[in-house]
Amino acid sequence: MNYKLIFHTIGKILLIEAILLIFPLIVNFIYQEENLFAFALTISILMVVGTLLIMIKPKNKRMFVREGFVIVGLAWIVLSLFGALPFTLSGEIPNYINAVFETVSGFTTTGASILNDVEAMSKSMLFWRSFTHWIGGMGVLVFVLAILPNSEGQNIYLLKAESTGPQVGKLVSKVRFTARILYVIYFVITLLEVILLLVGGNSLYESIVMSFGTAGTGGFGIYADSVGGFNIYSQVVIAIFMMLFGINFNIYYLVIIGKIKQAIKSEELRWYFGIILLSTTMITINLMVNLNQTFGIALKDAYFQVSSIMTTTGFSTVDFNLWPTFSKTILIIIMFVGGCAGSTGGGIKVSRMVILFKSLKREVQKLLHPNSVAPIKMEGEVVEGSVVKGVNIYFAFVMILLFIGTLLVSFDGLDFTSTFTGVIACINNIGPGLNLVGPMGNFDCFSYFSKIILSVLMLIGRLEVYPILILFLPKTWTGK
Amino acid sequence: MNYKLIFHTIGKILLIEAILLIFPLIVNFIYQEENLFAFALTISILMVVGTLLIMIKPKNKRMFVREGFVIVGLAWIVLSLFGALPFTLSGEIPNYINAVFETVSGFTTTGASILNDVEAMSKSMLFWRSFTHWIGGMGVLVFVLAILPNSEGQNIYLLKAESTGPQVGKLVSKVRFTARILYVIYFVITLLEVILLLVGGNSLYESIVMSFGTAGTGGFGIYADSVGGFNIYSQVVIAIFMMLFGINFNIYYLVIIGKIKQAIKSEELRWYFGIILLSTTMITINLMVNLNQTFGIALKDAYFQVSSIMTTTGFSTVDFNLWPTFSKTILIIIMFVGGCAGSTGGGIKVSRMVILFKSLKREVQKLLHPNSVAPIKMEGEVVEGSVVKGVNIYFAFVMILLFIGTLLVSFDGLDFTSTFTGVIACINNIGPGLNLVGPMGNFDCFSYFSKIILSVLMLIGRLEVYPILILFLPKTWTGK
Repeated sequence: MNYKLIFHTIGKILLIEAILLIFPLIVNFIYQEENLFAFALTISILMVVGTLLIMIKPKNKRMFVREGFVIVGLAWIVLSLFGALPFTLSGEIPNYINAVFETVSGFTTTGASILNDVEAMSKSMLFWRSFTHWIGGMGVLVFVLAILPNSEGQNIYLLKAESTGPQVGKLVSKVRFTARILYVIYFVITLLEVILLLVGGNSLYESIVMSFGTAGTGGFGIYADSVGGFNIYSQVVIAIFMMLFGINFNIYYLVIIGKIKQAIKSEELRWYFGIILLSTTMITINLMVNLNQTFGIALKDAYFQVSSIMTTTGFSTVDFNLWPTFSKTILIIIMFVGGCAGSTGGGIKVSRMVILFKSLKREVQKLLHPNSVAPIKMEGEVVEGSVVKGVNIYFAFVMILLFIGTLLVSFDGLDFTSTFTGVIACINNIGPGLNLVGPMGNFDCFSYFSKIILSVLMLIGRLEVYPILILFLPKTWTGK
Repeated sequence: MNYKLIFHTIGKILLIEAILLIFPLIVNFIYQEENLFAFALTISILMVVGTLLIMIKPKNKRMFVREGFVIVGLAWIVLSLFGALPFTLSGEIPNYINAVFETVSGFTTTGASILNDVEAMSKSMLFWRSFTHWIGGMGVLVFVLAILPNSEGQNIYLLKAESTGPQVGKLVSKVRFTARILYVIYFVITLLEVILLLVGGNSLYESIVMSFGTAGTGGFGIYADSVGGFNIYSQVVIAIFMMLFGINFNIYYLVIIGKIKQAIKSEELRWYFGIILLSTTMITINLMVNLNQTFGIALKDAYFQVSSIMTTTGFSTVDFNLWPTFSKTILIIIMFVGGCAGSTGGGIKVSRMVILFKSLKREVQKLLHPNSVAPIKMEGEVVEGSVVKGVNIYFAFVMILLFIGTLLVSFDGLDFTSTFTGVIACINNIGPGLNLVGPMGNFDCFSYFSKIILSVLMLIGRLEVYPILILFLPKTWTGK
């Protein structure tokens, strides 16, 4: 293991976090709040530690798969540990474990909160809290790759370890340019949402902060009723933008370079819209029949919640915990599906689910024709056997970790549904679950032990298992 | 598809079911109950239909994989549809869908019941109900293979489709002898339990019926409190025998032919005992700490419930729905693990779970050494790639079917925990779940639609997915 390279790279990331913390500091000045000390001290600590770390110069800049994954795993943990400091230093989240949970939840774009009264928080802290969503959405290492000049070539492993979905394709030949293109698209669509929310009569602060939560598919809000208090226009804008951020960013790149036909033909995109349409329809009918809601209200709430949960954002306009079990079960299922590969959304990803279903179907067909092995196709191309296998393994990982997580968290003795859906909501980076952790509840009901477990699960979900699990493997640290 | 062969074989199975129904008829005579008509009419119907079907002589007796799986899938459905007749004809379960649910639950050794008052049933009906466990435990086609002279060779597909676990090994070169050996072992251990229960002061009827439920790892009881009313000696006997029937029958064969050393060295067996020991220990401590139970009581109840749930039997001595969430979560997790391959137990099977974990571990290790592919070993031998892949696919099938099943059943609007654990309990062939379907509840709370869905899931679980899913594939019926 190339330890020097790892330390050096993490040093860079800490310095970037110091720079990013200047934005909430500016918010602090604008609203004349009292968090100067909390932000300034954190920035100072980051500057010192970061500078010390980048002074460790690696002799060998060659990066292998393992270094790529270890760097990404460690970077996200370290970012969260330092990013939690302002909350605790300011006294707004006095307990450090709670602050780390909140920060991990932010960076991983989960949006699960331990705050019992979000409206009691200062504006600068809420800005930082939502800003972590925006940073984590596209990825921190991707950001590093985008802005820093660096040795090309080996960095594909960083991109691979942090990006989402079964396959990672570079958009252009150079990793750095791919990273830049992704961030430019990300920035532009976020800006578009800010403008549309401003047009809807929301303040600049509300528009920016809510756009951060949408863009990262995070879900941290600034009001106790999440998006419930916003006007219908704003609710619809947020619902549509959540859906847009759940789309593979390659699609936007294709649109930009004029390959619109190819973009529309995307198989994953069609499944994504198909699942949203089907889920929205079923829930709308269920709400109309079982809760006697009018078509308009049922459709708006169903679409908002489906868009929010499918993209793993976690905003809510209503308390879906009070919905019929059928609607709740649909939401739980799409929690696992998640967004498209290469989006800011979490979950298992639409393309993985499609490949999984195709591989299951093929196994039954094999019984009929044992000797003819029809290849699995996706996006019109044959999916390599190793990718299909990877998808099966990934699905198994999520399920096994879900069970292990549920067992560890069940020690708190909360009811089974809260325990189980709380873990589902964390590992898939959703935010709310059902019962105690429903849209009107929060995660403060869990013990500190469980909060640590859930934090690890959020990281596992966001980084797609391997960058975190590799840290737990003794051989990672003992091998040559 | 060789339809004539399928009809002919199913005809044989119906005739065997007619013969098996003579046993409850005898019980009817002994206790002078009034079910002569119900049993006699069912037997007559089976004789007529069975005879008509075996008159269809297949020109070609060659059996391919697809015929093997289709026969097994259809046979189990047909057996259940006819086996339900006595319940409805006698008026003891007036609704036919309820009767089919109960019979499927019996044959698949699930033990989930729709009966609100089991003690109101006649002895002969309860005998038939528990006898279906015993028949279904080892398999109906295995029984056919054991007793009927038949063309050798191709019948391995029948054995494969009905046996449990990732790999099917014949014990001896001829399928028929393998089937016979399995049934002899099954019969002898069952007899042993009957004798031990008799020694404990139970009536012959109680001893036989409870042994059926244990041997098949089924779980249908004859009292409202399941095994709670039996003396402690009997509870321990049942607990131990449940555990014995969850062991791979190949182990007993090895013991019989003197290869005891090889039997003890079995890796699956060690994991099986290890999981039982660990789960029992954790639950015992949890019960002592959280419910202030004494060590003796906690240990006895923990061991009984772990043995019952792990082997997917479903008997209970206490209402574990009232246990702390941690203990309940352990039970839910071991519901998925299930018994050993080649046992009468359900679930995913211990060996599959071990192979799955090994394959997951290997994927993380691959990140460290991308080029060295260490083979997965089980029982000291390399597991073929196709078996590992099959295990991953099987696990995915169970999970996906679990979600689909939960969605369909959630339409009834019961609480999420009852819905979800009810489906888990059916697909893994356990019996009880939590809340409404807990040990003191039953499945009558579900709609007829859900009961049909749950029946299909029980069959899917018992026959390990493929023999049932192949029936739903249009190509099965249209292809040449």
